[in-house]
Amino acid sequence: MGNRRRLLLISNSTLYGGGYLDHCQEQIKTFLGAQVRKILFVPYALHDQIAYATLAREKLESLGYGLDSIHESSDPREAVTKAEAIFIGGGNTFRLLKALYDNDLIQPIRKRVLEDGIPYIGSSAGTNVATISINTTNDMPIVYPPSLTALQLVPFNINPHYLDTDVNCTHMGGLREGSLLLVEGNKASLQGKTGARLFVRGSAPTEYEHGTDFSFLLTKSSR
Amino acid sequence: MGNRRRLLLISNSTLYGGGYLDHCQEQIKTFLGAQVRKILFVPYALHDQIAYATLAREKLESLGYGLDSIHESSDPREAVTKAEAIFIGGGNTFRLLKALYDNDLIQPIRKRVLEDGIPYIGSSAGTNVATISINTTNDMPIVYPPSLTALQLVPFNINPHYLDTDVNCTHMGGLREGSLLLVEGNKASLQGKTGARLFVRGSAPTEYEHGTDFSFLLTKSSR
Repeated sequence: MGNRRRLLLISNSTLYGGGYLDHCQEQIKTFLGAQVRKILFVPYALHDQIAYATLAREKLESLGYGLDSIHESSDPREAVTKAEAIFIGGGNTFRLLKALYDNDLIQPIRKRVLEDGIPYIGSSAGTNVATISINTTNDMPIVYPPSLTALQLVPFNINPHYLDTDVNCTHMGGLREGSLLLVEGNKASLQGKTGARLFVRGSAPTEYEHGTDFSFLLTKSSR
Repeated sequence: MGNRRRLLLISNSTLYGGGYLDHCQEQIKTFLGAQVRKILFVPYALHDQIAYATLAREKLESLGYGLDSIHESSDPREAVTKAEAIFIGGGNTFRLLKALYDNDLIQPIRKRVLEDGIPYIGSSAGTNVATISINTTNDMPIVYPPSLTALQLVPFNINPHYLDTDVNCTHMGGLREGSLLLVEGNKASLQGKTGARLFVRGSAPTEYEHGTDFSFLLTKSSR
C-alpha cells in the first residue's frame, strides 16, 4: 500500500509578505495538473470554517480549480469517497485530528490516497496529520483527540513551521516555513527555498537543501 | 477546598546566564521557610530521572533542604502522603502528566496541597500540571496521557516560558521566563522581574508587572 500515493506537504500556508498560498501556488498547480477540476477542502483545523473555506475557495478558483468544503457536506465520508483531490488546511493540529476522528474520516482518506491515488495537499496542521502521528506538533492541545495517531500516509513525522528548537523525537523532519515535501509513490523530494532538517534516533540532525531526494524516508515499513 | 493551598509556580528552572534555580532561590527559601526539612521531588517530566534528581538534590541541599526523589520510592502514593513539601520539576508536560496518572498520584497530591496545606513548588511543566489542564502547553505531545485535565490546584491555566505568540485559549496566563506566581490560600501575587500577560475570553490581553495582586484569578469556581 502506498505506491499510488501523491502528496504535497506544505510547511505553512502564508509566507511573510505574501498572500494565502502565494509562495507555493506554482507547486500546487504542477501537482494537481489539468485532470483535477475540483478539490475537497477540509477546514477543520480552524474555528471559523466558513471564513476559512471562503479564503481557500478564492485562492483555488484563481488557480483554475473548483472547491467544495467538507463542512458544507451532509455526509463527510461520502464527500471523501467522491473527492478528486483533498486539501487539508492548517490551524490547530489537535482540533483537526479530533475532527477527523469525530467524523470517522481516517480510514476513508487513507483509502482514497493510498489505494485510489487521489492527490493530497496538506498545509501546516494538514501536513502534520498526513504523517504517522501528531507527536511532533508545536500546537497547544486545546482539545483531546481519541489518539495521537494520524493518517499515516508516510512512515515518518514532520514538524511544520520548523524553527531550530530542541526536539524529543525518534524520527521526524523539521520542515521550515517556505518548504514543501512532494511525495509520489515511493519517491519523495524537498521543494521550496528554506530547506529542512532530518532527525533520526541515534544520529546527529542533518540539514537538507531543496531538491533533496528524500525517497529513503519512505522505505521504512508503512502500515 | 483550597483555602490552605500554598503554591510557588515558577515559569522556568534556569534563566539565561544562571545555574539551576538560581534566579528563584530566594523565593524558594522564603516560601518553604524553616519548618520544611525535606522536599519530595518529582522528576517525571524528564527521561533521565536519576540525573535530574541529582541536580535538584545538589541545589536544594545547598539551600539547606533535604530531598527525596519519588522515582526512588517503591510506593509513590505513600511518598506523597508523607511528604512535607512537593516540588515538581520541568521537562515535557505530556510525559509528566501521563506519569502522574500512571502512578495514580493526581488525587493524593490534590489532597496534600488543597486539604493538608503542604507547600507545592512547580517549575515549567510542574507549573503547567498545577493548573486546570495542560491545554496551554507548548510542549510536543510525545506521549498520550489519559486526559489533559491536570491537578487543578488553581482555577486557571498557565503557559510557562511565555513568549508573545498567538494563543487559542479561554482563560490563561502567560508566565514569562523569570516570573513566578505565589499562591497562598485565596491570595495570589506575581513575583520575578519579567511580568506576565493575562488572557480572558472576550477581553484584550492585559500586561501585569511583578507585585501584582492576582487573587481575583482564584475567585472562579475551583473544583
